[in-house]
Formats: sequence, structure tokens, C-alpha cells
Amino acid sequence: MCKMLGECLDRVRQRAPLVHNITNYVTANDVANLLLACGARPIMADDPQEAAEITAHAAALHLNLGTFSSRTVPSMLSAGEEAGRLGRPIVLDPVGVGASPHRRRTAKALLEALPVTVIRGNLSELRAISHGFSTADGVDAAVSDQVDPLHPEEAAERLKAMARSMGAILAATGGVDLVTDGVRCFVIHNGRPEMSRITGTGCQLSALTAAFLGANPERPLDAAAAAVCAMGLAGELGWARMGPLDGNIAYRGYLIDAIYHLSGETLEKGARYEVQ
Amino acid sequence: MCKMLGECLDRVRQRAPLVHNITNYVTANDVANLLLACGARPIMADDPQEAAEITAHAAALHLNLGTFSSRTVPSMLSAGEEAGRLGRPIVLDPVGVGASPHRRRTAKALLEALPVTVIRGNLSELRAISHGFSTADGVDAAVSDQVDPLHPEEAAERLKAMARSMGAILAATGGVDLVTDGVRCFVIHNGRPEMSRITGTGCQLSALTAAFLGANPERPLDAAAAAVCAMGLAGELGWARMGPLDGNIAYRGYLIDAIYHLSGETLEKGARYEVQ
Amino acid sequence: MCKMLGECLDRVRQRAPLVHNITNYVTANDVANLLLACGARPIMADDPQEAAEITAHAAALHLNLGTFSSRTVPSMLSAGEEAGRLGRPIVLDPVGVGASPHRRRTAKALLEALPVTVIRGNLSELRAISHGFSTADGVDAAVSDQVDPLHPEEAAERLKAMARSMGAILAATGGVDLVTDGVRCFVIHNGRPEMSRITGTGCQLSALTAAFLGANPERPLDAAAAAVCAMGLAGELGWARMGPLDGNIAYRGYLIDAIYHLSGETLEKGARYEVQ
Repeated sequence: MCKMLGECLDRVRQRAPLVHNITNYVTANDVANLLLACGARPIMADDPQEAAEITAHAAALHLNLGTFSSRTVPSMLSAGEEAGRLGRPIVLDPVGVGASPHRRRTAKALLEALPVTVIRGNLSELRAISHGFSTADGVDAAVSDQVDPLHPEEAAERLKAMARSMGAILAATGGVDLVTDGVRCFVIHNGRPEMSRITGTGCQLSALTAAFLGANPERPLDAAAAAVCAMGLAGELGWARMGPLDGNIAYRGYLIDAIYHLSGETLEKGARYEVQ
Repeated sequence: MCKMLGECLDRVRQRAPLVHNITNYVTANDVANLLLACGARPIMADDPQEAAEITAHAAALHLNLGTFSSRTVPSMLSAGEEAGRLGRPIVLDPVGVGASPHRRRTAKALLEALPVTVIRGNLSELRAISHGFSTADGVDAAVSDQVDPLHPEEAAERLKAMARSMGAILAATGGVDLVTDGVRCFVIHNGRPEMSRITGTGCQLSALTAAFLGANPERPLDAAAAAVCAMGLAGELGWARMGPLDGNIAYRGYLIDAIYHLSGETLEKGARYEVQ
Repeated sequence: MCKMLGECLDRVRQRAPLVHNITNYVTANDVANLLLACGARPIMADDPQEAAEITAHAAALHLNLGTFSSRTVPSMLSAGEEAGRLGRPIVLDPVGVGASPHRRRTAKALLEALPVTVIRGNLSELRAISHGFSTADGVDAAVSDQVDPLHPEEAAERLKAMARSMGAILAATGGVDLVTDGVRCFVIHNGRPEMSRITGTGCQLSALTAAFLGANPERPLDAAAAAVCAMGLAGELGWARMGPLDGNIAYRGYLIDAIYHLSGETLEKGARYEVQ
């Protein structure tokens, strides 16, 4: 497993996967630049009449609920069905899924219809979205929104159970990040709390995860964990550049530029995680 | 009244108001980052099926006509009605309202249907939007688009009359900014002319105003004036960082980063205004 | 012809043309800031009910297919018809036109309906879009996607033929840029390959072209060539500022800021081109 994370990144740069994003207009520019920074090729297209045609050429599909609408949900469905037909990985980002019943229903409909490979969100979002998928109501309630960095075992086990019941890899990001396929769980300690002061770091990570999966489709769990480590490490490297007058806009730039320069070797050395 | 402006900002940072934005896709990213910079929490959601549900959780609502469409106007109406029902402040930014008859009709329909708390625009926009609300046609024609910084009294009185006839606080930004509820008028001298070379500083200010109102709902006029001072002061602080090769993109970043670091005390000291 | 390029830029700054953009949400912010940087005034409005009304006030129209939808295509058509009626230049950017049959049909429908002045894309996009316009099938197949910088003659001649058959100025950007009206062809050597690592430099150039045409409507070919030189030169000037940790986000800012400071004189001196 040694060098696995770095290899995943190196393959993104070698294979330059085309990533189809049906995503929100708030962070679409950052998502596109982050994908270019990591070596992938972004394409955004959300019209129902062409969504599936675009997916047909893509190595991975990133569906993001940020500013979804009645026009883009059918696009997500047809693109997702095409990805499923072709065996391409799908990453779903259920942005703010707990914020409205309509959003929760939409996320659920997507999950029921599509073979989603990875769901990437914070623990609250994953908990909200898992409701109805778990047979044990207790799982939901007990998964707290904060993972104890010194004792992540319990949260990891609960997320594993959730992943098994949902049949998808779950990437739960927060103070500590957890990435699990239901069997193994990466507990990742990279990142900075100040990343939450930049809009769209979550969307960017979801797109990055799609790029990593697109270039490494044969090992989706490792690829998702590598993407989460890479984003967190870029957050650390970017933070190290902050001057006294720099704020969240400067930080946003430093972070994406850190991805631009990140090598597989640096990722390998800087990643801080254990597997449970 | 001493320390009032700084207190308004401090409360934004303490209360972290959730601000619901139905806004344009051109500047949505900057709006979100500006809100995060000031300590508020942004949410963008514009589908008619969930707009009101999102507003129900928000401390304030920001409606922005920049790239409005037949899809988002019903969202603005239902979100605005929900905000009205819950007594939450609404900020309307009638971007480019003079640019087309359809845009003017849309702005008017929103104003007739919703209990808008603050209308934020430049004087031309406010003049265009006030047509039909004023009983005296002369008011419109006489309000010039430039306020004389040495003699703002006349413009202030005319804007007061306009505010009374429209039943809303008006924040008219330009070389000199005027903020009035029809009784008092803040005449604000902060800001830099170069701010108009950055796209979306107006949209950002409207969102900032919503954040300040959301955290200070009991004194909307003071909150709106504090937001206008804060934006102008950030424009001054950001400009002080400009190097010889820096242009409008660098300035955009410096401005938002200045909001990120702005304290209530700095705002209090740097605000330059009188009340008429 | 001496000083012609610089004059085109100087006139943009003098005349401050209003440019109506119906464009994608991924790069709309950069497009707006780039237009402000060059001295133009951007307006984005894409609702079918007001698109033509907005165009009526604009000096030029920029249509961009990036994230087009069934809602915005009718807006493009009505805006384009209004521009045609008023004799205003139209720039079409057929982003990713080869990516789906639906996109190709849409581009073709726009070209058949509207008097497009300039089509700006990479050679692959122009080739895809020209299919069906050329009487000689061989033209399409033979135009390769790379222009030999030392021997651009053949590619220039083929693009001239394409321009004649399509009845529009073609601006084909890549390692070497070609701009032709079917009679003359500017072969332009400005630019940096790293510009393709920034999302939206193509969209920005299309908008810049619209600004240059709007301020110089009497000489559209020169204006288009000047815009292409200006963008490439800004890419070079911006690249010269890159530090060891800077990536594509820093580069994006340096590029737009270089346009902000670019004078007609600097453009004249820095432009590297020949006319064939």
C-alpha cells in the first residue's frame, strides 16, 4: 500500500481524465480551475438534451446539489444513467441536503436511481442523506457531527455500517475525515479548519475525488482517500503561505495553486492517516 | 450612537447569521466569500420548490436581479413572502433596473408584493425603481446621479422623500453614499472610485447589508449604514495594498480579505460619515 | 497599418463599449472582470423576455455556448436578431462544440439564423462547426488541430477558405493563432501554453474580441486580431510575474491584471504577428 496515494495522483496527471460536472454556479469556476490544477480536464454541461452525450466521453461524473433546479435534476439522472451503463464512477455531493425537505427528497431520488460510487459530504449531510437507507434508526442519531481525533474508532465503525447499507463509498469530511467502503475506513488528519471559511472547498474536493476515480477506476476507495488527503494537504501548504493581511480569497488561491504544484511524492510524504 | 457601527459588525461575527441569497451567477462566488469573510454563513438556493423552505432557516434574505429569469422570480416571491411572514429582513438589489422595461416591471412587482427592508443600488437604479412609487414626478427627475460631496443636503432630502414614498430603507451608493429610512440619512464618504472596476462590488455590498441586518434586526438603518461604511473602508484598506502591477483582480481579493480582517474597532475608527 | 493594434485598444478605453454577454456560469465572473479591465462595460442578461432589450443598448454581443440550455438559446437568437437589425457586431464562442451532437446542432442553428461577425474557438471547434458550411469536404479533414509555427501558410489558406464559406471572420486560437476574414490572415505568435491551464481564457478572449469590435466596428478584422494579440501578450506579461509557488489561480489574476494595465503602446510593441 506504500506509495498508493502518490500513485493515484500521478495517474491523474498522466491520464488527464475528462470530468463531467453538473454542479452549482457559485463554485463552478473554482471547481474547473481545481480540476485543471490537478491535471484533469473539466467539462460543465447541464442541459437535459445533451447531459448523457457529454457523460459518454467522460472518465467520471460529478453531481453536485448546490444550486440544483427542476431543470438540472433530469440532467443528473440521464447523465448518471449513462455513467452507470458505461461503468464510469459517479461522485455525488449532497450540498446542504439537510436544509430543505425538497433537497433531501432530490438526493434520495438520485441515490435510488443511480449507481453512485462515492458520496462526499460533511457528517451532517451524510447523516441526513442516509435516513431511510439504514435499517437501524439508531445509526443516524448516534453518529455525531464531530469525530474525536484521538478516538475515531466509533465514528469509523458507524460510517462503515452506513456505507454498507447505502452501497457506496462514503467520504465524510470535517475536523477528521473518514473515507470508507464499509470494510476499510481511512481516518485522515490532513486539513485546516480555516478551509471552511472559503466557499466551495467541499465542491472542489468532490470534483477532485471524481478526477482521482476517473484516473484510478480499479481502486475507488484508495482514489477517494488520496483525493481527500491531497485536498487537506493543499490546505496546509496553502495556509503556510498566508501573510498578515491575507484572508479567505488569498487562501483560496494558495490552496488551488498548491494542488497545481503537488507531486505524488509530496502527497505520499504529507498524508497523515491510518486505516481502520 | 458612539461605537454603533463597530457593534453591528461585531454582532455579525458573534451571531454568524445564515443569509439566503437568490442572486446572479456572475458574482455569486464573490458574494459567498464576502459573506464568509464577514463572519456570516451564505446559502444560495433558487429553485421555486425549495426557496421558501431555505428562507425559513435564514436570518436574512438577499434578492438580486443581476441574471434573474422567469424561473427565479417565482423563487424570489415565495422566499420573500416567507421572510415577510417570519419578520426577517429582505435586501433587494435591482441590478441594472434601468436597462430594460422587463427588468423594471420585475423589480416593481417584487416591491409591490414583498415587505422589502432595504433597497441597495446606485442612484440611477433607485431613481428608475422609484418611478411609480412617488406622487411627485419631480422627485425622480431632480435626483441627479451624482451627489455633491460638499453639499449632499439636497440629495439627502430627496432620497429621504423617496424612502418615505417607497416605505423602505434606501442605500444609494456612488461617489458619496446615502443611507436613509426617510427620517435620518447617513452621508458616507468611505470608498474608492476604483471599486467600480471590480465586477460585483454592488452585489457584495447588498449581501453584506443582508448579513448586517440579519445580525442586527432591531436597528436596520444603523446596520445598513454600517455595512456601507464597512464595504467602503475595505475598499480603502484594499487599495492601500495595491502594487504597481496589480489590477482589478488583485483589488477584488484585497477588498474581500480586508473584510476578513476588519474589526468593529477598525470600522468605528475608519468610518467617515455624518447624519442628516 | 502601423499603430493599428494599439489604436484599437485605445478606442476601447475611450469609448467604454457596453458588451452584452449571454455566457456560461463557469467563467462569467472572469469575463466581466476582464471586460472591466480593458475599459469596456459588461452586462450579463440571458432571460428570453429581456435579451433583445438589453442588446439594443449594447455596442456588441458575445454569445457563448459553454453552459447553454434550452432557456438561453432562444435568448441568444432574439439578442442576435436585434444585434443584426442594429448592425452591431456579434461574437460567437462555440465552446466544446464537438463534445455532443446537440451542441453542434445548436451552434449550427445560431450560425444559420444570425449574422455572426466573428467565430472564436480553437481549430477543433472551428472545424466541427464548419462541417456543413464548406462545399469541399476535404477542407475539414485537412485542417489539422496544430498549426506549424514555422510554416503556417497552409493552415492559414485553409482557414481563409473556411471563413469565406462561412461568411464570418474566424479567430482560431492555439499554439499559433490565426485570424482571418477570408482575404487576409493574421498569424499571431503571442501567448503561453500555460494559459490553457486556466479555465475560461477562451471565453475571456471572446468577450475581449466583442469589446474590441464594439469600439472599432468599422474594422472588425483588425479589431479581432488586436484582441487576440492583447490576450496573448497579457498571458506573457502575466507569466513573467509567476513565483515558484504560483499556479493557475495566481496566473489567472496576473493575466487579467496585465490587461488592466496594458496600453496601446505596449500592445503595439509586444504584438508578434505577420499578415498572410
